[in-house]
Amino acid sequence: MNTEKNLKTLIVNKPLKLDCGKTINNFPIAYETYGELNLKKNNAILVFHALTGDQYVTGINPVTKKDGWWSYAVGPNKAIDTNKYFVICTNVIGGCMGSYGPSDKDPVSDNIFGTNFPVITINDMVNAQYNLLDHFNIDKLFSITGGSMGGMQVLQFISNFPDKAKTVIPIATTSSHSAQNIALNELGRQAITADSNWKDGNYASNNTIPGKGLAVARMAAHITYLSKKGLQEKFGRKLQEREDLKFGFDADFQIESYLRYQGSVFVDRFDANSYLYITRAMDYFDLAKQFDGDLSKAFKNTKAKFFIISFTSDWLYPTQENKEIVIALNSIGADVGFVEIESDKGHDSFLLDVPNFLNALKNFLDKSYVENEK
Amino acid sequence: MNTEKNLKTLIVNKPLKLDCGKTINNFPIAYETYGELNLKKNNAILVFHALTGDQYVTGINPVTKKDGWWSYAVGPNKAIDTNKYFVICTNVIGGCMGSYGPSDKDPVSDNIFGTNFPVITINDMVNAQYNLLDHFNIDKLFSITGGSMGGMQVLQFISNFPDKAKTVIPIATTSSHSAQNIALNELGRQAITADSNWKDGNYASNNTIPGKGLAVARMAAHITYLSKKGLQEKFGRKLQEREDLKFGFDADFQIESYLRYQGSVFVDRFDANSYLYITRAMDYFDLAKQFDGDLSKAFKNTKAKFFIISFTSDWLYPTQENKEIVIALNSIGADVGFVEIESDKGHDSFLLDVPNFLNALKNFLDKSYVENEK
Repeated sequence: MNTEKNLKTLIVNKPLKLDCGKTINNFPIAYETYGELNLKKNNAILVFHALTGDQYVTGINPVTKKDGWWSYAVGPNKAIDTNKYFVICTNVIGGCMGSYGPSDKDPVSDNIFGTNFPVITINDMVNAQYNLLDHFNIDKLFSITGGSMGGMQVLQFISNFPDKAKTVIPIATTSSHSAQNIALNELGRQAITADSNWKDGNYASNNTIPGKGLAVARMAAHITYLSKKGLQEKFGRKLQEREDLKFGFDADFQIESYLRYQGSVFVDRFDANSYLYITRAMDYFDLAKQFDGDLSKAFKNTKAKFFIISFTSDWLYPTQENKEIVIALNSIGADVGFVEIESDKGHDSFLLDVPNFLNALKNFLDKSYVENEK
Repeated sequence: MNTEKNLKTLIVNKPLKLDCGKTINNFPIAYETYGELNLKKNNAILVFHALTGDQYVTGINPVTKKDGWWSYAVGPNKAIDTNKYFVICTNVIGGCMGSYGPSDKDPVSDNIFGTNFPVITINDMVNAQYNLLDHFNIDKLFSITGGSMGGMQVLQFISNFPDKAKTVIPIATTSSHSAQNIALNELGRQAITADSNWKDGNYASNNTIPGKGLAVARMAAHITYLSKKGLQEKFGRKLQEREDLKFGFDADFQIESYLRYQGSVFVDRFDANSYLYITRAMDYFDLAKQFDGDLSKAFKNTKAKFFIISFTSDWLYPTQENKEIVIALNSIGADVGFVEIESDKGHDSFLLDVPNFLNALKNFLDKSYVENEK
């Protein structure tokens, strides 16, 4: 959470009208950058993070002291080569790593917002992030990319700002949250609000944390990030530091112990109300609906070059949903490439060391950059 | 829960040694029957229920006042024709509909067991149920069948009592709980034990119910019973009695409202500790492990005729896991049939009106019964 004093923060002093009807102003956006912006200012890549990500894409995250969430993909000589590109990433509004969110103080009441924070959307997120372009005086981004909810922001950004990116790389994502996606997010929200420490969102003023509920939400989500086959290969029915079953409710199986650990460490780094707000934004995302049900209209004004990437074992945002974006782009003759990467690592593949994915990403960027320079 | 006074109950007065090492005696098994046992006593079908089922297979469940859980399949002229067959179903031990379980009193302490109830297994369940054969003086069952955890009991029963059933019909099941299955059950258990009203399992003596946690567990499970496609077709992004999004955390979408409802009604009919015990029994189930890792050995002593049924959209116990049982049976030359039924209704297909499934079940039973009579 935003306990660090040395966060890079942009205070946006331009009113932003949110989809819910409310307007916010003078709000913080926390960001981080990697690499150097070149003189032509044509090497910037805006990376969008997923549900529980943050601005710390690579290197050591100063808050968690662990590797940044996209360390496999971003860094010197990596797929997104920070020797070559200037990478910007901002914490989404609604988040808990320094950008304006429910754990901030409501300037009107002087209390922590909690659930009085306005419900935000993917559209609101990218409209807020757009201010970074002005801040860095960048006219056009070389690329925008992100996986999962990051991919949703990619799609919304290029729809809102069709001439602000040369290349567009949505990864393992969807243009519209499905009923199953909404169900899984609702499950997480119910787990949080079921925690008696949640206190209608006012846990901060009660000096409590709905940690058990948030941990359950994280466990539920974590299961959806991995494939059945991947889980079986990694854990199967292996026992946790014991010779045989104990006939009790402790973690007999490694998978139980692993999930409990994932739940507990998440609570240390994430705010429960932010989890409610960000999942809500994902559930509300339906890009086609913004264009009378015709997804292709979302992209009709852009000349950007698209590259869409999906993974075979991703059951959260399966290949078919990624292909629907490709189909919409093809139907208007957009410049679009697509690859489905073979992987047993499920939805999490985009965060992991999946060489075919990382190579595809690198090749697309580097080839496009050569064309860009011509 | 076992509030009804007119439950049919068998008090087992023969000691049963459980897998955990403890022995139970003089314990109740609640059961229900449908149809008439014929004079030859060769028309009995033992039906095993799934995680949250009970002995009330068809007709109106006297406790919930709703249709029995297998009303589509069982009844006069239905797939399991009660004009022809005598159907027996018992509440599993560990359950909460009259059979011995954690909401019973511990005869030693005179307190409600809670988590002092012994951890039970699928093997313990079928060994307890076996007493019904003696009770009805049935030498050999015409058939044993059940879906999901019911199917696990089917497999364990024929392994334990190889000459006690003519035909064997495991449906939508597995011979071993996978890492993903364990993970999903652990999620449910964590949701229950996270509820501050759970009180280490002693909620009864505290006059509380961990209803919020149990509801979350049910929601999580419910999502796994339905397919992504089925959810999309039934709910999609339809809104719940509103024209547009409300920008809040109420149930905007029908799927949210549906899940909340499923969670809340479940709490009225099911005991939280039973949920812990029964999911634990499922997670412990690994039939091959009982036979040095060779599943076919589990069936080597039976001459029963097997018919295994799976569903295309079942991602909880997918066709592949059902096929592994078929392969094990084929490897020892057993009499085995198999059908994969096309259905978008997910794991729940076995409980629903899926005509191809119900016809397959009926035809197998009725043809086998004619042979049986010869």
